[in-house]
Amino acid sequence: MAGGMFLEKIRSEGLSHLSYLIGHGSRAAVVDPRRDCRVYVETAHRKGAHIEYIFETHRNEDYVIGSVALAEMTGAKIYHGRSPDFQYGRATKEGDVFKLGDLRLRVLETPGHTFESISIAVSDSGFGEHPVAVFTGDALFVGDVGRTDFFPDQAEEVAGLLYESIFGKILPLGDQAILCPAHGAGSVCGDSMAEREFSTLGMERLTNPVLQVKSKKEFVKAKLAERHYVPPYFRRMEQLNSDGSALSVNQLHSPKPMTVSAFEKNVEDGAVLLDVRSPEAVGGALIPRSLGIPIEMLSAFAGWFLPYDKKILLVVQGYEDVEIAFSYLIRMGYDNVTGFLDNGLNAWEAAGKPYETIPSVHTSEIVRRITENETFFLLDVRTESEFRGAGLPGAGHIYLGDLRKSLDRVPRDIPVVTFCGSGLRAVTAATILKMEGYDHVENCLGSMAACAAIGCPIVKGEG
Amino acid sequence: MAGGMFLEKIRSEGLSHLSYLIGHGSRAAVVDPRRDCRVYVETAHRKGAHIEYIFETHRNEDYVIGSVALAEMTGAKIYHGRSPDFQYGRATKEGDVFKLGDLRLRVLETPGHTFESISIAVSDSGFGEHPVAVFTGDALFVGDVGRTDFFPDQAEEVAGLLYESIFGKILPLGDQAILCPAHGAGSVCGDSMAEREFSTLGMERLTNPVLQVKSKKEFVKAKLAERHYVPPYFRRMEQLNSDGSALSVNQLHSPKPMTVSAFEKNVEDGAVLLDVRSPEAVGGALIPRSLGIPIEMLSAFAGWFLPYDKKILLVVQGYEDVEIAFSYLIRMGYDNVTGFLDNGLNAWEAAGKPYETIPSVHTSEIVRRITENETFFLLDVRTESEFRGAGLPGAGHIYLGDLRKSLDRVPRDIPVVTFCGSGLRAVTAATILKMEGYDHVENCLGSMAACAAIGCPIVKGEG
Amino acid sequence: MAGGMFLEKIRSEGLSHLSYLIGHGSRAAVVDPRRDCRVYVETAHRKGAHIEYIFETHRNEDYVIGSVALAEMTGAKIYHGRSPDFQYGRATKEGDVFKLGDLRLRVLETPGHTFESISIAVSDSGFGEHPVAVFTGDALFVGDVGRTDFFPDQAEEVAGLLYESIFGKILPLGDQAILCPAHGAGSVCGDSMAEREFSTLGMERLTNPVLQVKSKKEFVKAKLAERHYVPPYFRRMEQLNSDGSALSVNQLHSPKPMTVSAFEKNVEDGAVLLDVRSPEAVGGALIPRSLGIPIEMLSAFAGWFLPYDKKILLVVQGYEDVEIAFSYLIRMGYDNVTGFLDNGLNAWEAAGKPYETIPSVHTSEIVRRITENETFFLLDVRTESEFRGAGLPGAGHIYLGDLRKSLDRVPRDIPVVTFCGSGLRAVTAATILKMEGYDHVENCLGSMAACAAIGCPIVKGEG
Amino acid sequence: MAGGMFLEKIRSEGLSHLSYLIGHGSRAAVVDPRRDCRVYVETAHRKGAHIEYIFETHRNEDYVIGSVALAEMTGAKIYHGRSPDFQYGRATKEGDVFKLGDLRLRVLETPGHTFESISIAVSDSGFGEHPVAVFTGDALFVGDVGRTDFFPDQAEEVAGLLYESIFGKILPLGDQAILCPAHGAGSVCGDSMAEREFSTLGMERLTNPVLQVKSKKEFVKAKLAERHYVPPYFRRMEQLNSDGSALSVNQLHSPKPMTVSAFEKNVEDGAVLLDVRSPEAVGGALIPRSLGIPIEMLSAFAGWFLPYDKKILLVVQGYEDVEIAFSYLIRMGYDNVTGFLDNGLNAWEAAGKPYETIPSVHTSEIVRRITENETFFLLDVRTESEFRGAGLPGAGHIYLGDLRKSLDRVPRDIPVVTFCGSGLRAVTAATILKMEGYDHVENCLGSMAACAAIGCPIVKGEG
Repeated sequence: MAGGMFLEKIRSEGLSHLSYLIGHGSRAAVVDPRRDCRVYVETAHRKGAHIEYIFETHRNEDYVIGSVALAEMTGAKIYHGRSPDFQYGRATKEGDVFKLGDLRLRVLETPGHTFESISIAVSDSGFGEHPVAVFTGDALFVGDVGRTDFFPDQAEEVAGLLYESIFGKILPLGDQAILCPAHGAGSVCGDSMAEREFSTLGMERLTNPVLQVKSKKEFVKAKLAERHYVPPYFRRMEQLNSDGSALSVNQLHSPKPMTVSAFEKNVEDGAVLLDVRSPEAVGGALIPRSLGIPIEMLSAFAGWFLPYDKKILLVVQGYEDVEIAFSYLIRMGYDNVTGFLDNGLNAWEAAGKPYETIPSVHTSEIVRRITENETFFLLDVRTESEFRGAGLPGAGHIYLGDLRKSLDRVPRDIPVVTFCGSGLRAVTAATILKMEGYDHVENCLGSMAACAAIGCPIVKGEG
Repeated sequence: MAGGMFLEKIRSEGLSHLSYLIGHGSRAAVVDPRRDCRVYVETAHRKGAHIEYIFETHRNEDYVIGSVALAEMTGAKIYHGRSPDFQYGRATKEGDVFKLGDLRLRVLETPGHTFESISIAVSDSGFGEHPVAVFTGDALFVGDVGRTDFFPDQAEEVAGLLYESIFGKILPLGDQAILCPAHGAGSVCGDSMAEREFSTLGMERLTNPVLQVKSKKEFVKAKLAERHYVPPYFRRMEQLNSDGSALSVNQLHSPKPMTVSAFEKNVEDGAVLLDVRSPEAVGGALIPRSLGIPIEMLSAFAGWFLPYDKKILLVVQGYEDVEIAFSYLIRMGYDNVTGFLDNGLNAWEAAGKPYETIPSVHTSEIVRRITENETFFLLDVRTESEFRGAGLPGAGHIYLGDLRKSLDRVPRDIPVVTFCGSGLRAVTAATILKMEGYDHVENCLGSMAACAAIGCPIVKGEG
Repeated sequence: MAGGMFLEKIRSEGLSHLSYLIGHGSRAAVVDPRRDCRVYVETAHRKGAHIEYIFETHRNEDYVIGSVALAEMTGAKIYHGRSPDFQYGRATKEGDVFKLGDLRLRVLETPGHTFESISIAVSDSGFGEHPVAVFTGDALFVGDVGRTDFFPDQAEEVAGLLYESIFGKILPLGDQAILCPAHGAGSVCGDSMAEREFSTLGMERLTNPVLQVKSKKEFVKAKLAERHYVPPYFRRMEQLNSDGSALSVNQLHSPKPMTVSAFEKNVEDGAVLLDVRSPEAVGGALIPRSLGIPIEMLSAFAGWFLPYDKKILLVVQGYEDVEIAFSYLIRMGYDNVTGFLDNGLNAWEAAGKPYETIPSVHTSEIVRRITENETFFLLDVRTESEFRGAGLPGAGHIYLGDLRKSLDRVPRDIPVVTFCGSGLRAVTAATILKMEGYDHVENCLGSMAACAAIGCPIVKGEG
Repeated sequence: MAGGMFLEKIRSEGLSHLSYLIGHGSRAAVVDPRRDCRVYVETAHRKGAHIEYIFETHRNEDYVIGSVALAEMTGAKIYHGRSPDFQYGRATKEGDVFKLGDLRLRVLETPGHTFESISIAVSDSGFGEHPVAVFTGDALFVGDVGRTDFFPDQAEEVAGLLYESIFGKILPLGDQAILCPAHGAGSVCGDSMAEREFSTLGMERLTNPVLQVKSKKEFVKAKLAERHYVPPYFRRMEQLNSDGSALSVNQLHSPKPMTVSAFEKNVEDGAVLLDVRSPEAVGGALIPRSLGIPIEMLSAFAGWFLPYDKKILLVVQGYEDVEIAFSYLIRMGYDNVTGFLDNGLNAWEAAGKPYETIPSVHTSEIVRRITENETFFLLDVRTESEFRGAGLPGAGHIYLGDLRKSLDRVPRDIPVVTFCGSGLRAVTAATILKMEGYDHVENCLGSMAACAAIGCPIVKGEG
């Protein structure tokens, strides 16, 4: 029944988290499982294999790891790097080898992103010692390397550690090793990852921009110059991933459909309204006091704005989005998503309830207003580095994640137009302003991308 | 391997078309297959059964039947009622019996909806002659009966035939027979079907409003008083379902993703733009010259507005909706859906292309305008019977399907607000007006439902 | 998002257990959930519905009910009939009504099969009071009624109660009600169910053989004359279904693939070997000391032979059968299935391990041996009523479930040929005899069915 | 909607054929599609991508390629190497480049396995010219290289061409390129492929045994020493893959379930009986005149024995195996699989029909017979190279594929025991002998593997 070797990537959309099932015949291991971990059991079963080991490449800060739940479902043993923080699993160290049929998984200690980070080199004992693949966690990505900003007091040290891990341990495994990192493009763990999720150590050695340095010094300098944002939810992830206390997904109830009146009642009682529809739909009609985060932005921004101690209620376009939003949010530890508005905005409107709108403004209209010196505030919520790269003249910059605490910088007496890369982040900003009582808010659908396309006057922002 | 008897309903969303797989052990038949007919083969295979017969209860006018394609895939034989129109299959007549293991399928000629309509009574030979189920096609539905308006010159005759078919043949099969009709709630083949798709002849005899008549005369009178609309695409369905000339779905290419520039090029060359997003999203931003039909309304209204001789291009919220819209449209014979805008409105906006908006107006605001005698035209696009039931004072009525040919009744010099049951049909009207050059168009999200909920002044419409 | 009414039957193969998801729009209930209850959550989600109620028609004795687990997953409330035995859920009584949108679920107390049995009549409030469906649990089946042998001291009383429940409460609901029983053909809860799982009260009133009686007295007499077997595992089911103590399926690990040596080691340590391959495959090669039960017989016979206190190891043909056998066994409370032989018999044979064979004997050869007075023991393991109906001359009868305790009736000094309906039960008997040290055992593939087909001399058995 | 880059391997079980879907965003290509090609369309749709190109790395001889059918379903263009044989598609040549978003697919002419073989190097234009992957067709596999025995008159030339293609073109692409070959372990296109299907050029350069040569001469010598078998069906594959005349899978009917009598009738009319059950099941009971090929051996041996001009009927264990066997056989161009025996052997036996058995003999019993000089013929049907490696003393060798034409070497007057690696091929030999009228045939389950495990006396065979 059981067959050859397998190496399967399981991608978690939203977080752009990559995890892996690797094995030979009927024996398998999982690397960095996500919280909703049934997928590994099912994938292994399809192959006739049983999961024996679970590896964590490091204590993750951006999602709830599923190790404890997966261990309960399978009886597998959990291994992670050496750190006093872990209150579950076992520590593994440099040189430890795990066997899965003819596969050999050898542990390398590769600190830098975190101190206890490990990588795992995979070889096929029938074909010698050369690693055929390597799990690098958040040390080395396709086109980028891991963040080293989590220990600000030791910034230089950890950047140097990462250099040593990559250049001293990982790359020496050989150009032939297939690269298996823990994140792909779209993750909050790195800005510059390639859109391509398949690569090798050789490919990275030759083409990864961050690795094209002449010295450790140059590498460290470049890392220290990076500017990353730290969403507040990271702290909770670190705690859950240290003590292993996250509930099993099986114990969570998925959000209940709610009638308009039940929905209203919950909101009155303090529930938070999260609208994950598109910017256009949110612009067309919006329940008052909703936070709008388009579903493709949810994993990146929910952790800035959503509380862990209040009920969260969803407003969605279609029922499938309830499941998607729910899965994205529980991966971030939001176990408090209790309901959604049954039949969505249509039900709300048909009940005669009030709704707001956020008018869309074309970039060409913004340019006209600027040119004609009309009075309005153009609020650019992109990252500092994007804003420094290029922006519209006269724009004010507040990074979206920081908006709530920087409202004093947004004038209340003149119209505000929210602005970002193409309109997805700007709509979130617009809904926050509406919630905060701003009357006259518009959203620039198209934003910077449209500017580039139509040739607006562009200046370098001063963030 | 093969097991007991099975009776599976296959529902086609959109059309609310119901088809059936029935069988015993390894032998099966399909009743009224839809065009994308792989589902029957797969369902039969899961049961270890082979499809031997395909029955058409009548020549359908509202969708492309999949008999010929399914026969090619399975080798099954096609049977339908007696009519010179059919250019494929075999005629079956009153009393014919087909065997599937212990099941017996007996044909009843039940004209009325069409002349060649048949019903099929199912009995289990191990349990005597009493029918356990009956396929009634468009003769008898849950809570309604079939339309009898397709032969206006013989209106009274066909209504009488339907009475005889139902009261003389179908109901006498006995209260114990499970009802298996060809349509459920939401179909264009009947206004008043129940939201419940499971019933029996006894249940209908006792509770179906149309059957609670004292005489054939009363029944015929009621049928003659009904007012149905006939979408223009019915004619094409009749032709395809007579000559069996529809292409197999396997020969159709699903719509291609198109870049913004390819999309624009196609539109310039005459392609029709179909936007199936929600009313809120269409209101928020809309590509100029798009026809907006929310996806849940597509099967009901595409056949009024879409051409068969031009390319149709889709604008959707998410990629899944491409597949859904495509399947809905090919069931209506639209083989000309060639592409969709890749990445949707966001791509369009990011390319700096122009978009329009359709502002949403709350019902309370409409009431205010009426009360304060503001100048505007309230365009109610519901059916005549809905409009006659209740409407806002001063509204003008044009049924949505008739809007294009009745534009002379919509003033161009004052603002227009579109209005319907809850805002879904009104947005289609709004996009048609925009296409036709109306400048000032708003859509009343909530519409009549919101009026009822908040207690507007309501009058009886005079349609 | 949420739509009309739905009534979905979920069939558990093996047990032939039928459970139901019923609902309207976003509100749903489950009737008699099985232990592996994720299927209800997933089916409800596909419909955009949330499970609010769980009903148990009676305390089941033949499978582990999933109410407690399903309640944990969904937050739904559990309801069952009135009995002091239940240590979870709430009691419901005659006349209680539960609402799901327009659906009304009304409770009827229908004792007989058990004292606390309830039925649930379903009506659609938009269409009056007439029930459109009824959940009858183990009171009324398609073509049969429930067993009344569980209270031998009150046999007449309970048979009478069942008569009153069916004729006094259920049938009066009307011919039009769709029948939704808790079991279909193949269940240990009734011998004579139809192969057809769709029926109505009218259909049963007209055709169910057990209901064609002239009086309560005749009904009771017929019930008292029935002869049922009570597999020993029923006791455990009753306990688990009273105290709700069964583990959640999420807490169980599926069986591990085992190497030949690990497998042998476990057997030496006392594990029980269960071979679920076909009679032909078991006949061709069999690991010594295996109990052979073909997988389609597993639910019917596992409960006679398998222990709850030892490890159970599987031998299967293909990996899919591991999952099937595992699901069948956990539904019977066997949480002790810990492993399976990886790569099956082929691995065992390739390791040079010893195997046995059970030669197949054709019925015509049996007839020859009988005719020529050869010395052998023909062991017929069918039910007493089958045996009384017809058998081969000279056969000895022991019901398969009773074989282990009746071995003194099977001679050890002459060849034994096992015999049943077509060879499926006989192979189990053959493996038991092999385990018990019988040297010369053959299995008659074809058995009684082949006799009938080829025209053997047949006598009435004297069981 | 469309996202990043993807590279998906689609494995065809049985043939161990590997094909690929590669793309960026909404644009995709397929390399070497199999005949049942819906899988590519569905995989592409899941990614929101459209298939624009189809590449054939060479004219395949071991399966029916799906290019023409896939092109019809998608409108994609077909490309292959330059050869006058192709009657469809377009020729592509060294240096041609195809774009899919940022991906670049560059053609290399890599003759050797066939003259027109191409490889395709893939680079990511955002990351320079270095290939990140390469499709090598049948030139380079994981752990092996392509066969070069198809042109016996030019054997040395083609082996030399392959050397140049691998060492002169493919390996120079760099160690970093991920290897994407057209076959994995189990294929008839190479004996020594690794069980691991993931590798890189670097990994192969370092560890592929065939590449560890010092010179072209050494490579050519080794290739010329290889001994491959050419199943007769290869000729038909070459024809179908040249003229593109294979029917679309949509036009094929899957095998019909047949009653025992219909089955018998077909066999009488000349249909061929193919039994794909396990060796143990075939040994336990077998319909006379069946060819037994265990399903996991079907792709390797069907092409030696099955005709294209007679109906083929299946005997299977479970219904799923009908679908599996059907898919395996249509991939080999067997469009003549018309039916299967409904309910399998159990139905046959229950109908009282005659069956045969093939007794299983343990290896230890064979050794005893050899040691005690009993008279019997031990028929070893492994490959010549396996037989030369090690075998039992006194065994006669005939390769399974050659058995039918070498029956004069198998004595009819003494018992025959069939023997192979572990019993899977030997059972096919046993059924052939039974068909050919051999009376006394046994099969050695365990065979050579069991010998090794228990330590039999082993000699070098003289094939």
